[in-house]
Amino acid sequence: MSSFFSGLDPVRYDPEATGIAFRHYDADKVVMGKPLKDHLRFAVAYWHSFAADGSDPFGAGTFGRPWFGDSMEDARQKADAAFEMFRILGQPFFCFHDHDVRPETNDLRENHKRLNEIADIFETKMSETGTGLLWGTANLFTHPRFMAGGATNPDPEVFAWSASTVRSCLEVTHRLKGENYVLWGGREGYESLLNTDMAQDLDHYGRFLSMVVEHKHKIGFTGQILVEPKPQEPSKHQYDHDVATVYGFLRRYGLEDEVKVNVEQGHAILAGHSFEHEIALARDLGILGSIDMNRNDYQSGWDTDQFPNNVPEVALAYYEILKGGGLAPGGTNFDAKLRRQSIDAEDLIAAHAGAMDICARGLMAAARMFEDDALEAPRRDRYAGWSDELGRAIMAEDATLSGIADRAEADGLSPAPKSGRQEILENIVSRYV
Amino acid sequence: MSSFFSGLDPVRYDPEATGIAFRHYDADKVVMGKPLKDHLRFAVAYWHSFAADGSDPFGAGTFGRPWFGDSMEDARQKADAAFEMFRILGQPFFCFHDHDVRPETNDLRENHKRLNEIADIFETKMSETGTGLLWGTANLFTHPRFMAGGATNPDPEVFAWSASTVRSCLEVTHRLKGENYVLWGGREGYESLLNTDMAQDLDHYGRFLSMVVEHKHKIGFTGQILVEPKPQEPSKHQYDHDVATVYGFLRRYGLEDEVKVNVEQGHAILAGHSFEHEIALARDLGILGSIDMNRNDYQSGWDTDQFPNNVPEVALAYYEILKGGGLAPGGTNFDAKLRRQSIDAEDLIAAHAGAMDICARGLMAAARMFEDDALEAPRRDRYAGWSDELGRAIMAEDATLSGIADRAEADGLSPAPKSGRQEILENIVSRYV
Amino acid sequence: MSSFFSGLDPVRYDPEATGIAFRHYDADKVVMGKPLKDHLRFAVAYWHSFAADGSDPFGAGTFGRPWFGDSMEDARQKADAAFEMFRILGQPFFCFHDHDVRPETNDLRENHKRLNEIADIFETKMSETGTGLLWGTANLFTHPRFMAGGATNPDPEVFAWSASTVRSCLEVTHRLKGENYVLWGGREGYESLLNTDMAQDLDHYGRFLSMVVEHKHKIGFTGQILVEPKPQEPSKHQYDHDVATVYGFLRRYGLEDEVKVNVEQGHAILAGHSFEHEIALARDLGILGSIDMNRNDYQSGWDTDQFPNNVPEVALAYYEILKGGGLAPGGTNFDAKLRRQSIDAEDLIAAHAGAMDICARGLMAAARMFEDDALEAPRRDRYAGWSDELGRAIMAEDATLSGIADRAEADGLSPAPKSGRQEILENIVSRYV
Amino acid sequence: MSSFFSGLDPVRYDPEATGIAFRHYDADKVVMGKPLKDHLRFAVAYWHSFAADGSDPFGAGTFGRPWFGDSMEDARQKADAAFEMFRILGQPFFCFHDHDVRPETNDLRENHKRLNEIADIFETKMSETGTGLLWGTANLFTHPRFMAGGATNPDPEVFAWSASTVRSCLEVTHRLKGENYVLWGGREGYESLLNTDMAQDLDHYGRFLSMVVEHKHKIGFTGQILVEPKPQEPSKHQYDHDVATVYGFLRRYGLEDEVKVNVEQGHAILAGHSFEHEIALARDLGILGSIDMNRNDYQSGWDTDQFPNNVPEVALAYYEILKGGGLAPGGTNFDAKLRRQSIDAEDLIAAHAGAMDICARGLMAAARMFEDDALEAPRRDRYAGWSDELGRAIMAEDATLSGIADRAEADGLSPAPKSGRQEILENIVSRYV
Ligand SMILES: [Co+2]
Ligand SMILES: [Co+2]
Ligand SMILES: [Co+2]
Ligand SMILES: [Co+2]
Ligand SMILES: [Co+2]
Ligand SMILES: [Co+2]
Ligand SMILES: [Co+2]
Ligand SMILES: [Co+2]
Repeated sequence: MSSFFSGLDPVRYDPEATGIAFRHYDADKVVMGKPLKDHLRFAVAYWHSFAADGSDPFGAGTFGRPWFGDSMEDARQKADAAFEMFRILGQPFFCFHDHDVRPETNDLRENHKRLNEIADIFETKMSETGTGLLWGTANLFTHPRFMAGGATNPDPEVFAWSASTVRSCLEVTHRLKGENYVLWGGREGYESLLNTDMAQDLDHYGRFLSMVVEHKHKIGFTGQILVEPKPQEPSKHQYDHDVATVYGFLRRYGLEDEVKVNVEQGHAILAGHSFEHEIALARDLGILGSIDMNRNDYQSGWDTDQFPNNVPEVALAYYEILKGGGLAPGGTNFDAKLRRQSIDAEDLIAAHAGAMDICARGLMAAARMFEDDALEAPRRDRYAGWSDELGRAIMAEDATLSGIADRAEADGLSPAPKSGRQEILENIVSRYV
Repeated sequence: MSSFFSGLDPVRYDPEATGIAFRHYDADKVVMGKPLKDHLRFAVAYWHSFAADGSDPFGAGTFGRPWFGDSMEDARQKADAAFEMFRILGQPFFCFHDHDVRPETNDLRENHKRLNEIADIFETKMSETGTGLLWGTANLFTHPRFMAGGATNPDPEVFAWSASTVRSCLEVTHRLKGENYVLWGGREGYESLLNTDMAQDLDHYGRFLSMVVEHKHKIGFTGQILVEPKPQEPSKHQYDHDVATVYGFLRRYGLEDEVKVNVEQGHAILAGHSFEHEIALARDLGILGSIDMNRNDYQSGWDTDQFPNNVPEVALAYYEILKGGGLAPGGTNFDAKLRRQSIDAEDLIAAHAGAMDICARGLMAAARMFEDDALEAPRRDRYAGWSDELGRAIMAEDATLSGIADRAEADGLSPAPKSGRQEILENIVSRYV
Repeated sequence: MSSFFSGLDPVRYDPEATGIAFRHYDADKVVMGKPLKDHLRFAVAYWHSFAADGSDPFGAGTFGRPWFGDSMEDARQKADAAFEMFRILGQPFFCFHDHDVRPETNDLRENHKRLNEIADIFETKMSETGTGLLWGTANLFTHPRFMAGGATNPDPEVFAWSASTVRSCLEVTHRLKGENYVLWGGREGYESLLNTDMAQDLDHYGRFLSMVVEHKHKIGFTGQILVEPKPQEPSKHQYDHDVATVYGFLRRYGLEDEVKVNVEQGHAILAGHSFEHEIALARDLGILGSIDMNRNDYQSGWDTDQFPNNVPEVALAYYEILKGGGLAPGGTNFDAKLRRQSIDAEDLIAAHAGAMDICARGLMAAARMFEDDALEAPRRDRYAGWSDELGRAIMAEDATLSGIADRAEADGLSPAPKSGRQEILENIVSRYV
Repeated sequence: MSSFFSGLDPVRYDPEATGIAFRHYDADKVVMGKPLKDHLRFAVAYWHSFAADGSDPFGAGTFGRPWFGDSMEDARQKADAAFEMFRILGQPFFCFHDHDVRPETNDLRENHKRLNEIADIFETKMSETGTGLLWGTANLFTHPRFMAGGATNPDPEVFAWSASTVRSCLEVTHRLKGENYVLWGGREGYESLLNTDMAQDLDHYGRFLSMVVEHKHKIGFTGQILVEPKPQEPSKHQYDHDVATVYGFLRRYGLEDEVKVNVEQGHAILAGHSFEHEIALARDLGILGSIDMNRNDYQSGWDTDQFPNNVPEVALAYYEILKGGGLAPGGTNFDAKLRRQSIDAEDLIAAHAGAMDICARGLMAAARMFEDDALEAPRRDRYAGWSDELGRAIMAEDATLSGIADRAEADGLSPAPKSGRQEILENIVSRYV
């Protein structure tokens, strides 16, 4: 098995390297009082790196990894390969679905038994290597039983199946000291409104999430519970559309203090937002939990999950994160897959190493902007009026429409436009990236 | 003035007509116990019909109406033309912004005085003709003072100006017995996150809306307060992105029982939703207030505000409305504009008449589907499990994840997929449209 | 095998039926001098109906047909099922890829042998049932060897493999009296410009297509050679982007009189066009060959290949076809697949029957519009000036810029805008659909 | 007038500056044997910088420049301001439409007289300052007479008007030693297919372009004639959709050796392409003429024409240009406008200076990649097979499908997939940008 990555040495920080190396990601370099590794908290995604086969809607798998297969022996070999790659990359975390790490059956107890068997292996390897679990999750979307949803399936048996599966995954995550538990509802939504009862579905979904929160407390799991927004794909409409939608949902079911979001770049773009928008909004609503780092092809309409390669974009995302106090206990999970033609082991290592460098450059640029007060000083100036008398009067508890209106009329207000200085601010950012 | 529409007779219901006529919209025809006119509650939009000039970002105005100009005399001539058109169309309602009906100045009191002067004219004409006001609204987006927002402007003076303006418009709406008051926040959002403080903006916006609600009650206005979602355009990001976003916002500021939404077809599409989705979601969240009927070009990325012309689409929208008990006190406002090349008076009448027919056909098809239980019967079947024992157990107040999980495991559940029958349901719909 | 469709009777024309039936498609009904079946020339797509398994990028197959498997025996069972379904639907044609009808190996000669073995079966069944072949095609996109293209692969061995495969498929199509041969270049394009040489790729592609044309003539195949445009998916960029792009490509390689296009609704939409636009453009450029009928979800960004369900849209497409003199020797191929949740045999029959009805309604509406001269009369009026003196002078062979400019200046021209009457024309269309 | 830019000094190259400066654009720095200024050939766009007023479809103008007005005196003041800004920026070129530089009337001869009067002023100022004209063009889209097209108007009088206007603009461009003449057909297309005759329109458009080419030769203009592709906006569909569409059009009318394209970043994106794709395609088709540099908001659907701010994107564009031998006689025209809120003179200068820096960084990064053979070496390797025996045999003049197919079968070919190395190539690019 180790032969798969043979010839690939651990990736080192070496700005002058000619082959695969970190040219920017110096894990222990201190920025804003913390080493880069603690800012970025990189995680490798088991699914894209070890389970995906390179297939797409028009083509068969191209990756043909030696561990592909349906047996527990294959699953163990896969785990060996995974930790071999973690050793090469040296990233602090990984993430997984139950479905990624062991073959699935139609028997819940057998599924849980198998999951725990692999978890035993993970536990040993994690303690040997120091690799941590950023988050665990259950795959409630691949198997045909989930085709009409997990928690929002018209058949309550699927809800019950999902409850059992999530309990198992949450408990394994707890045992492996995962710092978060994620729910991505790829099938929680609809293909056609014609056969859907949204009102019921939302209530079922609210119930499901409430149960997960209750169980988390029951077992003493102190990690974050995170929902991952995505507007569509595989469903036509997904109930966790974007950050704002999830926020409204959490408020509706009284979960806004218990559940946060895992924001993904590609999903932000599919929803018509920038990544930094979704991060900033989640932060301002108090629900920023973690990020899935990747990128989407702006010219395609589906979730391409590519490795990031644009420093200016990544810098703006980390800037909003730094403003919010950083990612922990969340992290930067590479929810990114190799392109279908990138079939070599070297591609897998190089893609992650390059992405880690892009993130490091983005984070360091963001930190410099932040430390220089380069964006916050002009922002404070722009909103200064809200700290003055009129601004305070408007926000005073007893302010009324008539009170403010009377005042505006009495003062003969005629406010003059002031430049928003967008291009100048963009120029400032360009100096850093 | 009346010469503008000269030669254009009142539009009559006549299925066999060769010229402009209602071929389907028989206002008094009773469907599901109510005349069509009371189901549809059509309104003409003052802005598109009487204020817009046919310009676009690459071209000057083409409409050249006789009443165009900046004087109060022009405004009065415009009002004459408007009520002349209402007489020709016979629709029960209209809608307006302050900016549409009178020239604007930099003096708040003068603006209010002028608005009231035109309102006097409206009052007389409305009582003469029986035309009602579906809703009034304030234009807080055209004037340069609003370029960085109204309630969410970094300058609190603009908030104060907006408060005075909305008070004036709300009171005029009240005086004219408007059944709703709408807020569309075209500039409540941002052009660049770099110069924006979303956290502050949202608080200011929440405060503004709360003040409007407080004032509504103070003056005894019993109409609905409605927010109109739109994801972007003119802003890059608008805070009232879509129905789900507005819902979360209302919950955050405790306004979910006071404020509803005015859902527009074109805005739904810009946000990546179908019109029927946004209507159904608003209904299920308890905040469906009214609709802006138009259509968007699916091949363009901006808000084309075209007159509707596709019965199958419109039928699905009205179906969701009928399921929710109908539109009143909301209505069907044609937030639709003539294409830039449609410069004749006849175009204006024909466009509205054709759109009213499309809506009538859609509504009647929806009513037949509803009365036949054509979609609801299969939907109830599909969700039947939730009324059975397992479904009730899951939704019981004391249900826990472990309880349900234990049960699933003990019962050896292995749920079998059932067909979603989407194409069959689409075939059923096709029989009606 | 026949048990798969057991209980499903041949679909009959019966406007009053309660179950699956043609409510509008009366195959022998004469419209504009021809029976509907000869206008529409329906074909069933082997791939979506018999080979697809309901999987998507996030989910495993859900269809589980009895004939799924990798043996020739499975392939024969699949052929039985296919012709059983053709008997139930009664449509005149089908279409297939080599890959759909027989298992594929890594040996070209074995692949051809197997294809011919199935073709023997087809030949018998076709002669028994009267079902014809609208077109055949080769699948040059599913197998990993094609991951970087077929004719445009950087490896010329893949070009050679593709040449052998297309020869085999073209000859089988010829033997089965196929009326067309289609090339869809799903992998003829690129994933990344960074590793692509477009100039070479285009020359290789031009060469490939030229060879196919040469071979067609050599073997006496008199059907049409068609390229199917699609902008992207599976590739990031496909060289056959849209009709206009294919036209330029054909001109570049001198193939514009030899090759036409197969226009698909879903691909038109992905390329930012309406279906009727692509059809009209192909017709006006002299390269309209056939159509793939389906629909795309306007709210998604990928190729959803749904069954059509919107008569007004379909009517506009058939209108442009009728204006061009009809489809033959092309036809209406349902390149449409069941939604992943539509797992029953009944779904497959109902979806096709419903789609055939939608097309029949669209075609009949289009025919009435055409016979009434409802759109052509106003169009001729609008362009009448081009038949007058000035219009003819401009288009005269010896016209020059200076000649026309001098004349415009001398005549003191100041052309007045005339209404484009778009809404009125849309109203006219609405009377027919 | 000069007071508008007062306080704004000429922008200097100073990497350490704190205010507005070129931090990267050192005009005379030699890269690949040429000074940066000769690589980049920057031009300022008269329309966005001096004529645009900051209005958008929902808002009135915000810029209020002192030279706004309808008189020739205003036009002269505008010219003063323009050349004052050119002095501050020091860029070598500018571009203009007739409509930007002088007020327009309904009298062709008066329009031409006015244009020539301003051209006199330009001539003097250009010779004083050394600023050159990159290209001139005629505005055939703003005035209502063009609402249904210029050359493709259903009314041939508008064609004739357009011919006179383009003759005048082409001759002024010639007199001012413009290096190119551009046609952007914003209204050459349609709003509705229902009232359009594409076949006629295309013939009229072909005739128009042929006349322009003929006149160019007649007057001895040796600059390039360029068409600027754009898919839509203002029209629903524009005939110059994208580079591939224009290429097919040029071939159809025999103009492919006479006319090239001016490729705009924002238009590429609207058409679903990357900027580098459109540039590379134009280059490979032999029709790359010049570029309009800007950027589009990926989250909006309209043409935002923002100043570029992303070095990695710009670098890829210049890379394709360098591969094609550079831009001359084309250049880099900033078809970019200030955001509506950027109302100050300083915004105008800073936006251009920042954009010039972005381009300089992109060009220098591209040049290093090119000189290092960083992308070309792996690309040559990937396509090496086409220089070998099989590749040459395929492309040999007498190659046939059967010949290649026989050979593939005889050789028992079974080509093995090779990695496309996309992520590794992206990593390589990241080292340079
Ligand atoms: Co993710
Ligand atoms: Co994703
Ligand atoms: Co609206
Ligand atoms: Co709108
Ligand atoms: Co197709
Ligand atoms: Co398709
Ligand atoms: Co341009
Ligand atoms: Co543009």
